[in-house]
Amino acid sequence: MSGGHGSRPTLEAVAAHAGVSRATVSRVVNGGAGVRAEVRDKVQQSVEALGYVPNSAARSLVTRRTGAVAVVIAEPETRVFSDPFFAQQLRGISRELSERDMQLLLLLLEQRKDYERIGRYLSGGHVDGALMFSLHTEDPLPAMANESGLPTVFGGRPGWPGADREPRPLYVDTDNRGGARQAVEHLLERGRRRIAVITGPLDQTSALDRLHGYRDALDVMEADPALVAHGGFTAEGGERAMAELLDRTPDLDAVFAGSDLMASGAIRTLRAYGRRVPEDVAVVGYDDLEPAAWADPPLTTVRQDVEGMGRMMAELLMRRLGLAPESRGADGVPASVVTSARLVVRASS
Amino acid sequence: MSGGHGSRPTLEAVAAHAGVSRATVSRVVNGGAGVRAEVRDKVQQSVEALGYVPNSAARSLVTRRTGAVAVVIAEPETRVFSDPFFAQQLRGISRELSERDMQLLLLLLEQRKDYERIGRYLSGGHVDGALMFSLHTEDPLPAMANESGLPTVFGGRPGWPGADREPRPLYVDTDNRGGARQAVEHLLERGRRRIAVITGPLDQTSALDRLHGYRDALDVMEADPALVAHGGFTAEGGERAMAELLDRTPDLDAVFAGSDLMASGAIRTLRAYGRRVPEDVAVVGYDDLEPAAWADPPLTTVRQDVEGMGRMMAELLMRRLGLAPESRGADGVPASVVTSARLVVRASS
Repeated sequence: MSGGHGSRPTLEAVAAHAGVSRATVSRVVNGGAGVRAEVRDKVQQSVEALGYVPNSAARSLVTRRTGAVAVVIAEPETRVFSDPFFAQQLRGISRELSERDMQLLLLLLEQRKDYERIGRYLSGGHVDGALMFSLHTEDPLPAMANESGLPTVFGGRPGWPGADREPRPLYVDTDNRGGARQAVEHLLERGRRRIAVITGPLDQTSALDRLHGYRDALDVMEADPALVAHGGFTAEGGERAMAELLDRTPDLDAVFAGSDLMASGAIRTLRAYGRRVPEDVAVVGYDDLEPAAWADPPLTTVRQDVEGMGRMMAELLMRRLGLAPESRGADGVPASVVTSARLVVRASS
Repeated sequence: MSGGHGSRPTLEAVAAHAGVSRATVSRVVNGGAGVRAEVRDKVQQSVEALGYVPNSAARSLVTRRTGAVAVVIAEPETRVFSDPFFAQQLRGISRELSERDMQLLLLLLEQRKDYERIGRYLSGGHVDGALMFSLHTEDPLPAMANESGLPTVFGGRPGWPGADREPRPLYVDTDNRGGARQAVEHLLERGRRRIAVITGPLDQTSALDRLHGYRDALDVMEADPALVAHGGFTAEGGERAMAELLDRTPDLDAVFAGSDLMASGAIRTLRAYGRRVPEDVAVVGYDDLEPAAWADPPLTTVRQDVEGMGRMMAELLMRRLGLAPESRGADGVPASVVTSARLVVRASS
């Protein structure tokens, strides 16, 4: 609490203490190139004796490195903190960055005007790169990332206009379409014939791809509208969507929900309507996070390695920054990653 | 994704475009003092024409302002993302900072070595101030805040060694002791006589103060050890603590848990042991966040305005930074704030 910036030892104080020039101290602090070993040692001793901490604003003018990475989740805080998906992805990112001694800065979004300030922050030279996830089609974030010139890695397949232009955005995704197909094929194998689907927001590729996987498994071009409801990736949304489906299609015998949270909401509604799970209605979720294990009955779901995806996002960014060995695609540029998804069968189906 | 720092227009490019010196552009970008209006306009036009964004590292050397505030929660990410208390406090902070157009940077902690990096970050001139909460007695964060010279506001009454020395740490707290006393007095009024307590970590002042409030209500100097168990502020901890208490003191007829999450865990254990709530055992929690309303039966609890405390922390910091009108205590320095707590009676007692 005490002091203020003024009380910290300055570069000049270190120079005076070591009996060298300011420029020499600056060179040592910024890596020591071109400074004799005994001079370097003397400066280091003075740095330690005085407890000098180089001002990063000054240092980053020299090194053009800040040692920090911005993480932006394109969702209101309320969702960020209530959906375990984000905690898990952040954990992966955090572990990977921590191992590289990079500082993670989580930027929260809530109101429209927060975007503007975040755009300025990303363009302001405060960070070396950015990780962005849970983007929606109309999100201003990709354009901001582009304008800032910051190396950026996205979580989830890019679906925004222009995402297919070169240079292609770098991203980490999971096989959402294949995972959803497995889920619905499993329900078919169990003899279910009226299979409904609860989707996430269809302006997100993850939600869209899961709906496509549902169609693939049923081998239809379009889903029967009586069997589709939107749950917005929240538990409350799943609750509402399930009620809509039961009102519209009382004879449904299964439901595939595009997230575990929506599935747990759907189970609550089924119970309220007196339907037994899985005897009357089988339920399958997606994600395999805590809500799947806590659900009653425990949820059949599709497992994706969410923490691993977070780690990979951070690793791809480190490669872009030249801080990790490059792995390149066939065309010689760092390659995006799509991880696999796999069905986990439990009592709800 | 494209470009890199090199592709952004430079100060020099703006100077050339406007036909003025580099120093003039720099002065305009940093507030325009001492520059004639028509020159300022010309530079502004060039800034816009080229899409120039001043490098904050350069600018902050001049203005000594970054426009950013660090928020550090002294808990592992797993707790930060599973306890709605933190989401709520962050929401308050985020709203207040957003109104002042300051960027919130959330720094996550997980491993011991993260502290070191965070210490360097705080000392590095990246932010104008810091907000820290959920500190433990042995936390290195207060010392780091002190060494960094950064204006800092704490959430929760400071309990670390030296916290009572001048200048006193600035903090926002709630009346934990009074709130807990109300909770236990309520149980006494309902005729309960064997009232147990489940505490949070006693190296946190919030947990300690709530235990003291329990003792105040029972009018004892020390709590009966057979009636005290530690739940670590988590639902799982509450579950375990309740089992310990029932094994040790089977005739208990009430329990006061120091958080709603611990109370919800306690209710699960009571159900598993075949005890009815509130008929056999009355339960009171603390916080009045979502878990209280979701609990079955809904939880009697102590309400504290968590979002409001977040707002106040941010506001106190803005005052310290001279960005909001000062309100000063009797001795002329900005004053810490302690908000009130109030019992909310529901079905669990």
